Amino acid sequence: MIAYYNGNYLPVEKISISPFDRGFLFSDGVYEALRTYNRKLFMLKNHLDRLKYSLEQTNINFTEFDKLEKIIFACAEKNNFTHDFSTYIQITRGISFPRTHHYNNQIKPNLLIYTTELKKREHELNNGVSIILERDLRWNRCDIKSISLLPNVMANQNAFIKGCYEAVFYRDNFITEGSHTNFFAVKNGKVITAPLSNFILNGVTRNIVFRLCNENNIPVEEEYILLAEIFNYDEFFLTGTSTEITPVVKIDNNIIGNGSPGLLTKKIQKLFYNFVRNY
Amino acid sequence: MIAYYNGNYLPVEKISISPFDRGFLFSDGVYEALRTYNRKLFMLKNHLDRLKYSLEQTNINFTEFDKLEKIIFACAEKNNFTHDFSTYIQITRGISFPRTHHYNNQIKPNLLIYTTELKKREHELNNGVSIILERDLRWNRCDIKSISLLPNVMANQNAFIKGCYEAVFYRDNFITEGSHTNFFAVKNGKVITAPLSNFILNGVTRNIVFRLCNENNIPVEEEYILLAEIFNYDEFFLTGTSTEITPVVKIDNNIIGNGSPGLLTKKIQKLFYNFVRNY
Repeated sequence: MIAYYNGNYLPVEKISISPFDRGFLFSDGVYEALRTYNRKLFMLKNHLDRLKYSLEQTNINFTEFDKLEKIIFACAEKNNFTHDFSTYIQITRGISFPRTHHYNNQIKPNLLIYTTELKKREHELNNGVSIILERDLRWNRCDIKSISLLPNVMANQNAFIKGCYEAVFYRDNFITEGSHTNFFAVKNGKVITAPLSNFILNGVTRNIVFRLCNENNIPVEEEYILLAEIFNYDEFFLTGTSTEITPVVKIDNNIIGNGSPGLLTKKIQKLFYNFVRNY
Repeated sequence: MIAYYNGNYLPVEKISISPFDRGFLFSDGVYEALRTYNRKLFMLKNHLDRLKYSLEQTNINFTEFDKLEKIIFACAEKNNFTHDFSTYIQITRGISFPRTHHYNNQIKPNLLIYTTELKKREHELNNGVSIILERDLRWNRCDIKSISLLPNVMANQNAFIKGCYEAVFYRDNFITEGSHTNFFAVKNGKVITAPLSNFILNGVTRNIVFRLCNENNIPVEEEYILLAEIFNYDEFFLTGTSTEITPVVKIDNNIIGNGSPGLLTKKIQKLFYNFVRNY
């Protein structure tokens, strides 16, 4: 596998991250994950806007946004991807020594980009997935897409060992989002998800759901899903760049509805595929 | 500079961290920082106990604790340190591909160790430092010494640009700790610091302060320092392995007392140096 690091395309084994990269010592970095549909980077502008936001909020001096698309497709080409693929962009603040929490503003960021095969997810998309609920122990700036992801790892691993796709977080008495997805519920024909705040990521696919609902007269509202009332909702689904629209059919071992993806969930899934087909 | 990585002693420039090291992608790792006094690793057992705790809590399968001391002194020797030094140990979960939040339990951890010169801190120790107060945005498992440190970086940078040594966090209405230190106050001859919980690190130097106070009939109590009452305390100091006992003489630009280190702070500092001299 060939990946890009700071100007060079190299076999991954030849890419050498410094032990003094602040990403490695302090999780001092941000990232984006994108994918293509029809060989075009899906929602590139939205991902770049969010990347800029994450960089601004963390005060990382990266400005070369214009070259990212070209690098991504060069990676894909060097890996002989003739089909759709996913890609990962990580920008860390740079290398500094000695190790201090504070940093010099003149430090040069490090850019890693690689492309990978898309996972086959037909079964999950068609049949839905199981999730667990986990207390949200994360920091208060989940609006920043940072690599400070240990709490997400720990929660998602708890889901994984129970055979579940995702851990969905609750903070106090309300649901926020999944460890790497946004979380939606449906009740009486209305689509509901947590409002934007410092507690959730401004998901690109989340925003597409709003757009599709609005265009198709499906009621949609930003309001908190309450933990205590979770089993009073009719349907659930997760959204994300690789997750797309994934139905949830089991929560903490409780079967939702008849155990199949909900009707409105399936409708939104269909609208989504129609949207990406014409992207 | 020669450092240790996974069995090899190499010039730092030759150490190559994989871009798929989970420490780099997910801050999926833990660390310890130690120093020597009289060429002996200070409180080694306490640091190793805490390292074990951090590894257990994050489910990282590292067990080779017995070899760490030898590696540290080998690093020091290869760098011709004939005097006291500080050392850093970082253990990440290992390398995995493709990138998924969840992990395989059989993954092999990566161990980085390096030694560095101690910073000269006479001025700070003798004259005290300025700090700022910052809202504690960190996750709820600050008892784990993980590399998921972006919030600590952001807070400490805010202190740094204001010419301050440290950002001390408050959560709701109570003080927790600094971005890389524990925080103490003194009132009416009593030494006070936040109780152990998931909100603070179980500091090695923090525990030494308790021991020294108890041995010297200085009243000491674990209780929360309230944000609203911060300026009703008489003295403040920070503790940490490299911070030792550092007096605080200014908080958010407010001069504490007469602007010099407090008397009890200086007494504890003296007891501390007596303790390390005989270590």
